[in-house]
Amino acid sequence: MPIITLTSDFGHKDWFGGTMKGVILGLNPRARIVDLTHDVPGGDIRAGSFALAASCRFFPKGTIHVAVVDPGVGSARKAVAVQTADFIFIGPDNGVLSLALASEEIKTIQSFENEAYLLQPPSRTFHGRDIFAPVAAHLSRGVPIRRFGPRLKDVARLGWPKARRQGRSIQGEVIYIDRFGNAISNIGNELLSGLSEAVCNVVGNVRWTCPLRGSYAAVPAGRPVAVPGSTGFLEIAVNGGSAANTLGLKIGSRLLIRPTS
Amino acid sequence: MPIITLTSDFGHKDWFGGTMKGVILGLNPRARIVDLTHDVPGGDIRAGSFALAASCRFFPKGTIHVAVVDPGVGSARKAVAVQTADFIFIGPDNGVLSLALASEEIKTIQSFENEAYLLQPPSRTFHGRDIFAPVAAHLSRGVPIRRFGPRLKDVARLGWPKARRQGRSIQGEVIYIDRFGNAISNIGNELLSGLSEAVCNVVGNVRWTCPLRGSYAAVPAGRPVAVPGSTGFLEIAVNGGSAANTLGLKIGSRLLIRPTS
Amino acid sequence: MPIITLTSDFGHKDWFGGTMKGVILGLNPRARIVDLTHDVPGGDIRAGSFALAASCRFFPKGTIHVAVVDPGVGSARKAVAVQTADFIFIGPDNGVLSLALASEEIKTIQSFENEAYLLQPPSRTFHGRDIFAPVAAHLSRGVPIRRFGPRLKDVARLGWPKARRQGRSIQGEVIYIDRFGNAISNIGNELLSGLSEAVCNVVGNVRWTCPLRGSYAAVPAGRPVAVPGSTGFLEIAVNGGSAANTLGLKIGSRLLIRPTS
Repeated sequence: MPIITLTSDFGHKDWFGGTMKGVILGLNPRARIVDLTHDVPGGDIRAGSFALAASCRFFPKGTIHVAVVDPGVGSARKAVAVQTADFIFIGPDNGVLSLALASEEIKTIQSFENEAYLLQPPSRTFHGRDIFAPVAAHLSRGVPIRRFGPRLKDVARLGWPKARRQGRSIQGEVIYIDRFGNAISNIGNELLSGLSEAVCNVVGNVRWTCPLRGSYAAVPAGRPVAVPGSTGFLEIAVNGGSAANTLGLKIGSRLLIRPTS
Repeated sequence: MPIITLTSDFGHKDWFGGTMKGVILGLNPRARIVDLTHDVPGGDIRAGSFALAASCRFFPKGTIHVAVVDPGVGSARKAVAVQTADFIFIGPDNGVLSLALASEEIKTIQSFENEAYLLQPPSRTFHGRDIFAPVAAHLSRGVPIRRFGPRLKDVARLGWPKARRQGRSIQGEVIYIDRFGNAISNIGNELLSGLSEAVCNVVGNVRWTCPLRGSYAAVPAGRPVAVPGSTGFLEIAVNGGSAANTLGLKIGSRLLIRPTS
Repeated sequence: MPIITLTSDFGHKDWFGGTMKGVILGLNPRARIVDLTHDVPGGDIRAGSFALAASCRFFPKGTIHVAVVDPGVGSARKAVAVQTADFIFIGPDNGVLSLALASEEIKTIQSFENEAYLLQPPSRTFHGRDIFAPVAAHLSRGVPIRRFGPRLKDVARLGWPKARRQGRSIQGEVIYIDRFGNAISNIGNELLSGLSEAVCNVVGNVRWTCPLRGSYAAVPAGRPVAVPGSTGFLEIAVNGGSAANTLGLKIGSRLLIRPTS
């Protein structure tokens, strides 16, 4: 049974995600549909890109990942399906797929233009239902990806700030804040591997210094801590609280990791 | 594998929707259960009715649609199953099914009174679990709809305001606001088909005028636009923003479409 | 097809619950996964424990219930799988399983220490993905529970306040507030069985008295009512409103049921 994941900013209040499932199951009753998240902030392509990149590789080979964060729905932006070594990614060509694709081996990128595989007539305001869902369903039934439209050379790419070494220190910044208020940075855990003791200087509302530890609970309740996170990136957390609220952290807040031994 | 959809105001904080699924799977392990939405505003029968009507026809024939927005749970209101040409609809007989049924061909309407098909003893506060879920599961296994109770002549109907032509103009009002803040009106897209150019006068906190266009992105970011929507009705949107917040729109806010050529 | 339920405080904004599903389906493509709730308040072990206890027994025998409300993730707290007569329960050993287990017949309690069944290397911040999901998947494939690690004598238990009889009256308190604002107490419905007429004195912002009735709709809209609830415990509700907001009720607010005939 093929797996199709859904990532969107559709929220849960309305019928948007559910309707995509109806369309998919009508075309492929055997599809297994898994919601990654439908609560990407409205129109926030970067947050959607991060959510997809953080989770896509935990699904079995052959999974079809659909990401619909699409503020330009109905405009001239293309819709694409990208075959990689392990997965197929589907979404608007606005960058939402790009962070996940940065660590995948791309085989082919196809635009969708073949109307035979779309709901007819497609609306210009809900391509999740009319374009992305039916394309995912047809792909899950084994329709060859080349049939959907012309091949493209590349997808749109988002620029992401990179962490930088500065002597023995590492500079980075916050790129995602999760539901617990943990602030995930762009500092890869692998950059921290040589450090036995370090502190993290965090610039939020004021400057904070927190120790580098292995788990949230390694500091007393209410205290900040820097932890190598489950996404592969360093996180700033507050044990039992919200780092974002307590420290005043936002996307773009700066961090400096400084070895202390 | 039969599909059962769930629409409710149960939210996601508690165990209500999940428990319905446990009851269904205990009676029919082969059922495919799809959440349409559980975030209908608490007790808002009209919003639930709209969500169901906007999505039910995108599911395959034979789908069983269960809608539990039920402020009168435990009172004398009946519970009904409605067989139409394509679907079965199940819910309290309080109007929540009526908008979806308005465009379906009704074959039979049955009340549930046969206790053999309910959880025993049914509570008086959670009929989703004790009545609607087991009835949906038994129907999905092929139990004939006539077995559940006596036939009824009709279901409760909600009154919906109708759009009106006034010369070459069309008057309507807002009937639903979605998670993006798009305000969906009662003006059917088909009423707009002859118009090459039109503006929409919107009465929110102040009067606004916006052009009629094909997509949200057809106006600059932050600007209002009237768009034929994916539900089949005209929507007022703000490109990249919330029309409800920006324009002060609510359920009942008035619109006037005026041709300009 | 084995059923695995998920209860957590992961919310819906991120990829946490979805990623657990990817891990499970990679190990057991036949698993049926049902979300009980992912909106337990962050770190609120008692609320998670109540949600699981209120719903677990409505699933078929053999269901595997996974509950991840885990503020101590990465610390020395153990992770456990508990085989009962009807179900398997999996979670951190911090009390989150204990209310459900209080009404189950426990067969064995096993700690997880066998790394062969975990994602390698497990992170120290997301055991839902790296430990609980793979253990649930392996159990659902029939791996014997004894293989996961050493047997334990008991699980961590939460203390819950008990309702008390005081003459013909019953004293209790609020232990859970649901999405509708209904305040669920620790007074079991069975304690009320002899009462033909009673009132409930509720201590919120001010003292309120409300009648004991069978359903929410048995009092006029906006009025408070005490109702034997679907969880097996007395609830305080406001017909068409939120008892928590209207009466100022919180976890721990006191109730007194007083017979009036």
